[in-house]
Amino acid sequence: MRAVDLIRAKRLGQELSDAEIRFLIAGLGDDTIPEYQWSALLMAILWQGMSDRETATLTDAMMRSGIVVDFSHIPGLKIDKHSTGGVGDKTSLILAPIAAACGVPVPMVSGRGLGHTGGTLDKLEAIPGFNVNLDLDRYKAVLEECGMVLIGQTKEIAPADKTLYALRDATATVESIPLISASIMSKKLAEGIDGLVLDVKTGNGAFMEKYEDSRYLAETMVAIGRGLGKRMRALITRMDQPLGDMVGNSLEVAECIGCLRGEGPADLIELSVELAAEMVLMGGRAENLDEARMKCLATIDDGSALEAFRKVIAAQGGDSRVVDDLSVLPAAKKEVPLIADHAGFVAGLLARPVGVASMLLGAGRARTDSVIDHAVGVVLHKRLGDRVEAGEPLCTLLVNDESNVPKALKMIREAYQFAESPPPAQELIVERF
Amino acid sequence: MRAVDLIRAKRLGQELSDAEIRFLIAGLGDDTIPEYQWSALLMAILWQGMSDRETATLTDAMMRSGIVVDFSHIPGLKIDKHSTGGVGDKTSLILAPIAAACGVPVPMVSGRGLGHTGGTLDKLEAIPGFNVNLDLDRYKAVLEECGMVLIGQTKEIAPADKTLYALRDATATVESIPLISASIMSKKLAEGIDGLVLDVKTGNGAFMEKYEDSRYLAETMVAIGRGLGKRMRALITRMDQPLGDMVGNSLEVAECIGCLRGEGPADLIELSVELAAEMVLMGGRAENLDEARMKCLATIDDGSALEAFRKVIAAQGGDSRVVDDLSVLPAAKKEVPLIADHAGFVAGLLARPVGVASMLLGAGRARTDSVIDHAVGVVLHKRLGDRVEAGEPLCTLLVNDESNVPKALKMIREAYQFAESPPPAQELIVERF
Repeated sequence: MRAVDLIRAKRLGQELSDAEIRFLIAGLGDDTIPEYQWSALLMAILWQGMSDRETATLTDAMMRSGIVVDFSHIPGLKIDKHSTGGVGDKTSLILAPIAAACGVPVPMVSGRGLGHTGGTLDKLEAIPGFNVNLDLDRYKAVLEECGMVLIGQTKEIAPADKTLYALRDATATVESIPLISASIMSKKLAEGIDGLVLDVKTGNGAFMEKYEDSRYLAETMVAIGRGLGKRMRALITRMDQPLGDMVGNSLEVAECIGCLRGEGPADLIELSVELAAEMVLMGGRAENLDEARMKCLATIDDGSALEAFRKVIAAQGGDSRVVDDLSVLPAAKKEVPLIADHAGFVAGLLARPVGVASMLLGAGRARTDSVIDHAVGVVLHKRLGDRVEAGEPLCTLLVNDESNVPKALKMIREAYQFAESPPPAQELIVERF
Repeated sequence: MRAVDLIRAKRLGQELSDAEIRFLIAGLGDDTIPEYQWSALLMAILWQGMSDRETATLTDAMMRSGIVVDFSHIPGLKIDKHSTGGVGDKTSLILAPIAAACGVPVPMVSGRGLGHTGGTLDKLEAIPGFNVNLDLDRYKAVLEECGMVLIGQTKEIAPADKTLYALRDATATVESIPLISASIMSKKLAEGIDGLVLDVKTGNGAFMEKYEDSRYLAETMVAIGRGLGKRMRALITRMDQPLGDMVGNSLEVAECIGCLRGEGPADLIELSVELAAEMVLMGGRAENLDEARMKCLATIDDGSALEAFRKVIAAQGGDSRVVDDLSVLPAAKKEVPLIADHAGFVAGLLARPVGVASMLLGAGRARTDSVIDHAVGVVLHKRLGDRVEAGEPLCTLLVNDESNVPKALKMIREAYQFAESPPPAQELIVERF
């Protein structure tokens, strides 16, 4: 078998066999297939696509390129959630404690933010001392002890994905749905789960803006997971405006703790509880979704979800006083309000420019090696459908370095669209399957 | 400017600017753009194509990646011919001496054979002592002294092409007409020519089997050359059956010397003289093609073309007695005839399997590092339109290593097709522009 023949076959739109795909991933691992051949193959895959079977085999081969964690000694079905990312998308910090409090073990390996999107690891690191870089032994121990664990990708998990991701990033081959799906699923399936709930975002703040693309991505990931024997459920959810009122790492942790106390914006609570309920149902802790939803809400009411969060923060070295005292979180030096210059209803609040503005303030990364300021971000006072009077603040920027403030203000002002009357309400959850 | 953005632009079908193309070639030369980015770009180019302007700029940048030979001290227009290659395609060894004898300087940088096709350098090296590896100083000196020179690609000529060619070969991105054209033309334009006559083959023994592909390749190369200020002429010629009666290195040298003596198969003489006449016309040594053709034929009649060949062989270290005494050439140990088992007319004689059979005997290369046996090959006794009686030899294999003889015989037997009546005659030269 020669890599060049397989590249040609894919270039011509042919389907690769399972053995051929495993040969290609093995060659990536032992350096017998050079990166220049893999990058040409990636472009051919982006061009010609992959069948569901090819994508499932690729995912499986990538998953098996490293350690596949075995949690069989921990009772119950281990369930995780994956979101394709957005602006203010902080549900992991709410739903994982809720699901854990319902008795569903949640082993969660997350990523960092890039561009306009935030990342779970960055948010967690806003909590002083919180360590996301656990080794696999400690990862297992924390899950056993706390019913949940929140870490970053380790070098043992899906190393083929790490290599391919870097190569895709450098060769403009990121935007292939089979490759995106295989990348996400290989990592998720290696972390030791029995089931996965997907939150696939659609809209201008999402990675995939178009509904059809989001749906295809969701379908592809569900097919991969089910093909490899996992329980799978996908929600397609709107990411037109930021989720919740807060964008920025400390701010989002504070907002999540608020939600776990029963206080918080309706959209964020709704989505977090729906996703948690799907996890609880999938994990066999409820008979149907209504019952699961009730159980989830009960963990907020009785404080058990907040306690689960407190426990995991302490277990991962973080300052767990944060759940009672938000002043533990780093705070920005200065507040800069954005004032409405005329009255009306908010008819649009584009998530992407708000995400970019927050990044410019230091809350996100322009490049993978950018350094984050956890304290800064944006607090939105007016969101879709809200009535605004001239002179009212639309939002407040929390700032340390002021150099990008004018640019950020301009971006957010342009992100707001106004109308004479409130826009029609839209469902947050577009579809689930 | 970042390579990844240019890969994305090409992937999306956008046109790259001249500055962008030059940036990409410069980065290949100084290793600031890694091969894995270039290979993804090559696949994107194969997918999305390149405009004439992009192809011309790519060619120019590749040409300027090394030395562009300056022959301005040698009077007259320097003219070369390039063939896209085929089976028994040996015209260079005939037309270069003819054009040189007509006073047109011919600086020719050629390649080696691969797969079913032969290469000019391999044929020349069948002549004992002939050195195709001259340095640039000697290359210039031989042209000045002999009016022609025949060498292989040096490391100074279009090094970017050398790197890209190896990368295309390893990544299944050879078959892109803009990339093929840029590869050929960057080398040819660097060798110091004022004009180029192209012999673009079409048919089953050609690199491009389909007429439309051959025509597009010819048009692209003509556009590049003219865009860069060169005189260009293209002939599209049939490569359905092998050209001439001989396939194999010593055999082909012998057949060429025969043609220069005025003896040889009609198709080979016709094509060689037509191409030489185009060169003579392009080089300003005739008023029109008829006059050029007469001048070319005259160099055969008066022996001046043969003398030009004798002179260049001697200048390049070869045993020039070969032009009078073919026994100087290496000869095979054994002759194996292929006997016709029934009577009829030859209605087809597929060039490609004859080329592969010859390669299997040792006359060509299965891989770029294969070693060639100059003595072996195939002599065709019966060609398209010929009458055959049962028991007559169709061809004779000239053999040293007998291991592949049964396979070669079987391939050539299958390459022959017979009919009750002779097939309609077809023009060798399909088109010229």
